[in-house]
Amino acid sequence: MMDRNSIAGRFKKLQDHICGEIEKLDGQSFDEDSWTRASGGGGRTRIIQGDIIEKGGVNFSEVYGEVTPMMRKNTEINADEFFASGVSIVLHPNSPHIPIIHMNVRYFELSNGKYWFGGGIDLTPHYVDMDLARSFHKGLKSTCDKYDLGYYPKFKDWADDYFFLPHRNETRGVGGIFFDHLSADSKVGKEELLNFCIDLGELFPILYKEQVEAGLDKKIEKHHIEWQMLRRSRYVEFNLVHDRGTKFGLVSGGRTESILMSMPPMAQWKYDFHPEGNSEEAFTQSMLKKGIDFVL
Amino acid sequence: MMDRNSIAGRFKKLQDHICGEIEKLDGQSFDEDSWTRASGGGGRTRIIQGDIIEKGGVNFSEVYGEVTPMMRKNTEINADEFFASGVSIVLHPNSPHIPIIHMNVRYFELSNGKYWFGGGIDLTPHYVDMDLARSFHKGLKSTCDKYDLGYYPKFKDWADDYFFLPHRNETRGVGGIFFDHLSADSKVGKEELLNFCIDLGELFPILYKEQVEAGLDKKIEKHHIEWQMLRRSRYVEFNLVHDRGTKFGLVSGGRTESILMSMPPMAQWKYDFHPEGNSEEAFTQSMLKKGIDFVL
Repeated sequence: MMDRNSIAGRFKKLQDHICGEIEKLDGQSFDEDSWTRASGGGGRTRIIQGDIIEKGGVNFSEVYGEVTPMMRKNTEINADEFFASGVSIVLHPNSPHIPIIHMNVRYFELSNGKYWFGGGIDLTPHYVDMDLARSFHKGLKSTCDKYDLGYYPKFKDWADDYFFLPHRNETRGVGGIFFDHLSADSKVGKEELLNFCIDLGELFPILYKEQVEAGLDKKIEKHHIEWQMLRRSRYVEFNLVHDRGTKFGLVSGGRTESILMSMPPMAQWKYDFHPEGNSEEAFTQSMLKKGIDFVL
Repeated sequence: MMDRNSIAGRFKKLQDHICGEIEKLDGQSFDEDSWTRASGGGGRTRIIQGDIIEKGGVNFSEVYGEVTPMMRKNTEINADEFFASGVSIVLHPNSPHIPIIHMNVRYFELSNGKYWFGGGIDLTPHYVDMDLARSFHKGLKSTCDKYDLGYYPKFKDWADDYFFLPHRNETRGVGGIFFDHLSADSKVGKEELLNFCIDLGELFPILYKEQVEAGLDKKIEKHHIEWQMLRRSRYVEFNLVHDRGTKFGLVSGGRTESILMSMPPMAQWKYDFHPEGNSEEAFTQSMLKKGIDFVL
């Protein structure tokens, strides 16, 4: 059965699976807060303050009810009732040599009969390493390719456009994939779309493990930490100014602490900072742009 | 003459005056960046990294030109051309015993003949001290009362509503005054409105001096710093999620570094933090609400 409850059930299991894998990687465990939403539904927020992950959250939610005027105004939802369920993750590592990572998969259903899946995975290295960025993208592509050869190129460009800070004229990181309003078509059915989301979710810890292991033993100097704090402040800017999921959560009466688990543990703003000419920091800055082909 | 250029000229002088007073208070000097806006106008951004002010900015700007589709969509401006000039200030002090302070005065003029003044001053103590909050409000009230006895009560309530984080159900601090769309009426003419803005600007360093001197010698412990970092993260949330000036700046192609000079030097997010029962932090939290009468 592919009703909304079974979809939410699969997402819940996905949360369990991902948390288990991250715990194996980190060594520490998640704490869980279960919560309910006054006007319908609830969720399980799991937070880790680990050895590798300084602050991370893996959130499952299943919310539903009336589409309020506030939601109507601030989102594209135009129906009487909605249902939304999904898993979202943001992990902020201790080491500046390990990237920040984000994943989200979600299912929406409206009382007018419309439904869609959406989601994405994107990587925000404090220091861009081209080999690791390529490996990340190739992993995403191989999962996309199992469903539709058109997915990766389309969703990669979508991520470039979505994870972008216009006021900084830079991408959030090296991108990944992003997709929204995905309903069954002649090539991919509804159940396959759900399987695609679950497959991406199961790919997530595998992809991140590679990133973690590559950065774990690298020596941390003061300038690395300073740059990490600045990159984190851009992450804050993206999430609070641009991210649609954050906006939807805040205007739909979501649980603030669960939505803002995406915020870094600590962030820094410096007025008009520019990295020096040939530094690693300047290289990273130069790579924060759209249209880089990582699967050549 | 009360044309737009003379108004901008008065604001520029106000910036000079305020910077001079803050330099006397802090001991360190401002650095200045002059900038121009590609589609019209520019400004002078002055930044201080001082002994008392860890990171502060006093920005003058005078921008004008075509109202773009982006501006039309994201603001209430509905005309072909706009002109906007003003001074905005945010000061983040080193000591958690000194409040963050914000001031803005601005003038808008549209090609359809409409014009208005707007502005506000509000105080964000990391630790609320009721006597200091009262003194701050009384100062604002006495300047307001010179122009219209209705101003303070109206603008105080407006500040309570404006400097509010719905997703946290808390005010940004102890408020102050906020006003917008103020045009000449039977009681207060256009020149008086400008004088009101300038008077507020000149009051600003006087009010802040009192706050600084009261907090300067207080001993700083680790828990004070931790709380300060958390309060600063709420400041970030307000400015990036709610503040209309920030939004207007970013969508009107303003200079990002000048707009985001309001960001704190360093901020911290902790998942679901609640101060302990009888702590100073819990007292401050309990005072972050609308409707407190500070001029009893």
